[in-house]
Amino acid sequence: MNRENFSNHIPLKNIEITDPFWLEKTELVRKEVIPYQYKALHDRIPDAERSYAIENFVKAGETVRRLKNGEEVPVYPADKWHYDDNNAAPEAFHGWVFQDSDVYKWLEAVSYSLLNYSDKELESKAKAVIDLVCSAQLDNGYLDTLYVINNRDEIFSNLKDFHELYCFGHMAEAAVAFYDATGERKLLDAACRFADLICKTFGENGIKGYPGHEIAEMALVKLYNFTGERRYLDAAKFFIDERGKKPYYYDIVLGKETVNDNYHYNQAHCEPRKQNEAVGHAVRGVYLYSGMADVAKLFNDDELYHACEKIMDNIMNKKMYVTGGIGATVDGEAFSFDYDLPNDLAYSETCASIGLIFFARRMLEIKPVARVADTVERALYNTVLSGMAQDGKSFFYVNPLEVLPEASQKDSRKRHVKPVRQKWFGCACCPPNLARLISSIGEYCYTENENMLYVHQFIGSRVKAENADLVIKSSYVQNGKISIEINPKKRFTFAVRIPSWCNKFNFSVPSEIKDGYAYFEICDECIIDCDFGTEVKMIKCSNRVRANTDKIAVTRGPFVYCVEEADNGKNLQMLKISKNPNFRIFENEIIADGFREKECETLYSDWREPELEKAEIKLIPYYLWGNRGENEMSVYIRI
Amino acid sequence: MNRENFSNHIPLKNIEITDPFWLEKTELVRKEVIPYQYKALHDRIPDAERSYAIENFVKAGETVRRLKNGEEVPVYPADKWHYDDNNAAPEAFHGWVFQDSDVYKWLEAVSYSLLNYSDKELESKAKAVIDLVCSAQLDNGYLDTLYVINNRDEIFSNLKDFHELYCFGHMAEAAVAFYDATGERKLLDAACRFADLICKTFGENGIKGYPGHEIAEMALVKLYNFTGERRYLDAAKFFIDERGKKPYYYDIVLGKETVNDNYHYNQAHCEPRKQNEAVGHAVRGVYLYSGMADVAKLFNDDELYHACEKIMDNIMNKKMYVTGGIGATVDGEAFSFDYDLPNDLAYSETCASIGLIFFARRMLEIKPVARVADTVERALYNTVLSGMAQDGKSFFYVNPLEVLPEASQKDSRKRHVKPVRQKWFGCACCPPNLARLISSIGEYCYTENENMLYVHQFIGSRVKAENADLVIKSSYVQNGKISIEINPKKRFTFAVRIPSWCNKFNFSVPSEIKDGYAYFEICDECIIDCDFGTEVKMIKCSNRVRANTDKIAVTRGPFVYCVEEADNGKNLQMLKISKNPNFRIFENEIIADGFREKECETLYSDWREPELEKAEIKLIPYYLWGNRGENEMSVYIRI
Repeated sequence: MNRENFSNHIPLKNIEITDPFWLEKTELVRKEVIPYQYKALHDRIPDAERSYAIENFVKAGETVRRLKNGEEVPVYPADKWHYDDNNAAPEAFHGWVFQDSDVYKWLEAVSYSLLNYSDKELESKAKAVIDLVCSAQLDNGYLDTLYVINNRDEIFSNLKDFHELYCFGHMAEAAVAFYDATGERKLLDAACRFADLICKTFGENGIKGYPGHEIAEMALVKLYNFTGERRYLDAAKFFIDERGKKPYYYDIVLGKETVNDNYHYNQAHCEPRKQNEAVGHAVRGVYLYSGMADVAKLFNDDELYHACEKIMDNIMNKKMYVTGGIGATVDGEAFSFDYDLPNDLAYSETCASIGLIFFARRMLEIKPVARVADTVERALYNTVLSGMAQDGKSFFYVNPLEVLPEASQKDSRKRHVKPVRQKWFGCACCPPNLARLISSIGEYCYTENENMLYVHQFIGSRVKAENADLVIKSSYVQNGKISIEINPKKRFTFAVRIPSWCNKFNFSVPSEIKDGYAYFEICDECIIDCDFGTEVKMIKCSNRVRANTDKIAVTRGPFVYCVEEADNGKNLQMLKISKNPNFRIFENEIIADGFREKECETLYSDWREPELEKAEIKLIPYYLWGNRGENEMSVYIRI
Repeated sequence: MNRENFSNHIPLKNIEITDPFWLEKTELVRKEVIPYQYKALHDRIPDAERSYAIENFVKAGETVRRLKNGEEVPVYPADKWHYDDNNAAPEAFHGWVFQDSDVYKWLEAVSYSLLNYSDKELESKAKAVIDLVCSAQLDNGYLDTLYVINNRDEIFSNLKDFHELYCFGHMAEAAVAFYDATGERKLLDAACRFADLICKTFGENGIKGYPGHEIAEMALVKLYNFTGERRYLDAAKFFIDERGKKPYYYDIVLGKETVNDNYHYNQAHCEPRKQNEAVGHAVRGVYLYSGMADVAKLFNDDELYHACEKIMDNIMNKKMYVTGGIGATVDGEAFSFDYDLPNDLAYSETCASIGLIFFARRMLEIKPVARVADTVERALYNTVLSGMAQDGKSFFYVNPLEVLPEASQKDSRKRHVKPVRQKWFGCACCPPNLARLISSIGEYCYTENENMLYVHQFIGSRVKAENADLVIKSSYVQNGKISIEINPKKRFTFAVRIPSWCNKFNFSVPSEIKDGYAYFEICDECIIDCDFGTEVKMIKCSNRVRANTDKIAVTRGPFVYCVEEADNGKNLQMLKISKNPNFRIFENEIIADGFREKECETLYSDWREPELEKAEIKLIPYYLWGNRGENEMSVYIRI
C-alpha cells in the first residue's frame, strides 16, 4: 500500500444532491419507502407478512423494566432462525433472528434523508423509535431483542447462526448517521455502550469468536472514526484476525472437529489474509471484505489489502454479472464457482450489490482504481436501481438476467426468481438497505486527501470539500456530459474517472490521462466540461461463461439494457440482433435492427439455416424492467 | 381405436437374439450385472451402500414363521421412506420402502437371461431366492417386507407414500417371467395370491385407493393376459378409474382437503382420462401411462386411449431430450413444463426412458405409429444404453446432455449430475431395470396380428411368429443395412418401420410406403434387403427450447453423438462446428470440421467478431460417454 494514494470520502453533510435523476430516487425513498417501511416495522400494513420488529423492542423494553424492578422474567428458547405463533409463545421474540436490524436500517435511511431534507415530524418519529430501542438495552450495554426477551443467559452463545453482532453493526451505523444528521447522541451513546461490552467480551482474554454474519467489523471502524476510541478499531481487527483460524471457533463451541475446510458460507473457512476468492453467502462476503479493507487501511496492513485486491479482482473478473450483480446461486445466496453466471438461475441479490459498493468505496479510499469505480457504477445503475419499482412501492431481492414467468411458477429451481417486484418481505433486508444507500449516494461519488480530489461517480451536486468547493451539473445519464465548477481553497490535483465504456471523451481543459483517470492541476477557479458521450455498445461476455456464447448485451452509458415481452412479444430467445443494428435512441428506450427467428414447430428436425424475419428490437434500461406486469425479460440477446 | 390396428408383441421365447451389438449387451447383463446385483442384494459388496433387500426377506420369513407358531411378534414404526441403523431397530425393516422390488427386478432379469442362455446354477440361485420370498408371504397373500416385519395392522394404510402395490407389481412381472422361462410356478402362485388379496381389498366395496407409485396397473394386466383371470384386469381398470377422482382418496386418508389441484407428482391430480400432459415423477408417469394403454386396449376404451395419445404426443413434441431422456427436473425427478429441457440440469433418469419404452410398445400394439417406434429407438440407443458402463460394472441414473465436472462438484443445483457412472446405489432402481430391459429386448422389436407382422426395431434375431418365421441379419448400427429372410406360414402383410432420420432408403422388394412404414405383401419365402444408410446428420432443436439456440446435435443412424473433453480439450462451449463439416466416420467416432473460439480473457468487452482457430471436432456416441474418467461432455455444439 502506498499511503500517498489514501483518500477519504466526503462527509454527506457537505454534499447536496441536485441531480434530477437521483433526486427523483431520493424523493421516492423519502416519500414512499421510509413511510411504508415505518408502517411495516409497526405491522400496520394489511396482508403483508408481519415484521414484529417494533413489537420485539416493546417486549424487550418491558423485560428490561421488569429486570430493573427485580421482577421475575420468563425464559423462552432461542434456538431457531425464525419465530412466529406456530413455534413461539405470544410473549416471546417473533420474526427473524436479525429482525432488529430492519429498525436500524430504517433509522439510518431516515438520518440520511434528514440531511437532504429537514422534516421535523419524521425526526420526532425517529426519536420515538430510538427511545424505544434504548429502553430495550440491558444494564451491561447488551441489546438484541431475541436474547433480551428470550434468554439473557445465552447471549453470544451461537455466533455462527445468530445475529447479535450483526444487529449491533447496523445499530452502530444508524447511531453514527443519526448523530451526524441531528446532533442527537442518545442512540450513539447506546451503541457505544454495546460496543464497549463487545470490546470487553471478545478478545485475547475473552471469547475468541467472530460474527457469523459480518458487518460489525466495518461498523466498529465507523464508530472508531467517529469517536476516536481505539478499542473499537482493535475489536474490528480482532474479529478479522480470529476469523477462520484453526481449530475453528465454531467447531470448538459445537464440540466437533471439521476435517476438511468448512464454513465457506460464512467466509470463515480460512483466515481472511489467506483468502483470494469471493466465496459463500454474497452479502456476508462483501460486508466482511469491506471491514477487511477498512482495517487494512487503518493498520497499513499490506497482507490484508492484497487479500482484498485478489478478492475484488476475482469478483470483477470471474463472478460478477454485467449488471453488477453478484451471488450466482440461490443455494446459500452465494457466490458460485468462477465463470458460473447463469442468467435464469441468478440470485444476484440487491443487498449483495449494495455491499459490493461498500467494499468498492473502501478499496478506492486505499487506491483509486478506475475499474473499481466502474464496478460501483455498474452495480448502482443496474442491479441496485432495479431493486426498486418506479413508484417505490415494490422491490426485487433477486435480480435475474433472464426471466420466463412460467419457469418461476412451475420450476422449483427458479422459485426465487420473481417476475414482478414484491410488496414487502418478512425478511425485509433489501428495501431498507436500498433506502439507506440511495439516501447516502453522495458518499460514493468523491474521495480526497490533502493533495487530491477524485470524482468517481457523476451525480449533479454541490460539494464542500477540503480542497475546493464544487458545483457539478450532470446530464451524465442522458448524454454523458458533466460540467464541474471548481472553487479551489488551495492548489491541488483534481481527478475525474473516465468510464470504462467510454472510448471517446473530451475535456474542456487540458488533462493528463493515466490509468482511467483524467488529472487536472487546479490553482484557480475554473470550469471543466467533460463529455463522455453515451455511445450504445454491444458487449460480449467471456466465452468462459457458458450461458452467453453467441449473445451480446446492449449498454448505453452506465446502463445495461434488456428486452421485455411487453415490447417484443413472447419467446425472446427467438430475437437476433444485427451485427450493425443502427441503434435509434429515445428516452429510456433503444430501437435496434434485428430479426425474429421463425418458430420451429418440430422439436427435432434436420438443421438448415434458420428462417429469419426482420424485426425491430426494443430495449429498455435493465433497472426499469418488470414495471409493466409479469412478462419475459432478457439482458442477453442472440447475435 | 380401430381394432384392426391392434397387434401383440411376440413372446420372448420365440425370439433368439443373434445381433453382435446386442449380444454384447445381453452377455454383459448375464455375466456382470446379474451376478453383481446378486451380491449387492445380499450385501456382499465391500464399500457399497447396503441394500438390505435379502436381509428383509429373511426377517419377514422369520416373522411369518413366528406368526404361524402363535409366537409374539414385535411392532416397529413404518413411517419413513428409508430405514437404517440410525433410525430403526436392528430387527426391523431396513433400506428404502421399495427395497423388495430390487429382488423382483433381479428375478425378472434372470428369467429373461435364462430364456436366452440356459444356466442351471443361476436358475437354482433364483429358486432359492424365490423360496425365501415366498417364506415371507402372509397367510392372506400379502407380501411387502416393510409391513410384514414392522406392522401387519397397517398394511395399505398409506398408499401415496409407501410402495406395497409397487412391490406387488414387480413381483407379478417377475413371477410371469420366471414361469415363462422355467415352467416353475411357485412365484406365480404367490403373486396370484397377493393379487387375489388386492382384488378383495380394493374395489367398489373396499378401499377406493390407488398406487402412489404406479406399476400395479400394467402388472395386473400382464397377470390377466397370462392367467386369464378377469378380476386382475378389472383391478387394473379400477385403479385407473379411481385415480385422481375428487375428493382425492389421499386427502380423505389424511383428513384434509386440497383446494387446488394437487398430486401432480403422482399423476393423481385429475382422472387419467382427462390427462393430456405428462406431469410429475417421470418414472411413475410412464408406468401409469403404460397401464392406461393396456387397459384402453383391452376395454376398447377410446377416451383412455386418446388421453394416452395426447400424453405421448406431449412427451414427443415438448418434453423429451434428443437422447430420448425424459424428466427434465431433479425436483421430484419429474417432467418439467413444455420445452423446458436444460442440458446441464437434466434429470433424464435411465428408468424413465425404460418406462417410456414400455409405454411406447403398448401404444404400438394399439396402433403402429412410426414416430412412437422412433421414440423407442431414440431412448434405447442413447439414454438407456448410456445408463451402463462398457464393462457393465457402473451405472448412470441421471443422463445429462452437458456436464462440467466442476459444476457437479461445486454447484448444489447440479449435485445429481454425476460426471462418471456410479458403482451401485442404495436406491438401486436403474441397474436392475436396465438388466431386465436389455435381456428382454426382443419383446420391443416385433408386433403382429392375424394379418400383419411389424418390424419396429432392427436387431439381428431369429423369430418364430404366427405369420412367419424370420431370420433377421442386421448391421443396422454399423451401416443401416438389414436383411430379412421370411418363411411365411400363410399370406400376410409385412411392415418395416422406416427410421425417421432416414431420408434415402432402399428395399430389394417393391413396397408400399405409408406413414413411416414400408408394407410388403408376403405369399412366398423371400428375402427383403433394407438399406437405410447411416447418414451423419446435424439436428436442430426447436427454438422453443432456450438452451439450444444456435446449436446442433450430431446423429448417425439411431445414435446421438457428443463431444468429450478427453478428445476435444476443456471448455467444450468454445467449439463451433462448420455448417458443412465434412464428417469422417470411424467406428464409434466421427471427426468433423470446425473451429475453436479463442478464449476471451476479459469478462466483459466490446463485441467484435470472435477469433476462431480451425479445429477438428471429435464426436463419440452419447451412450459411450463417461467411460474415460471425469471430463466435460456436451451433446449440443455451437454452429
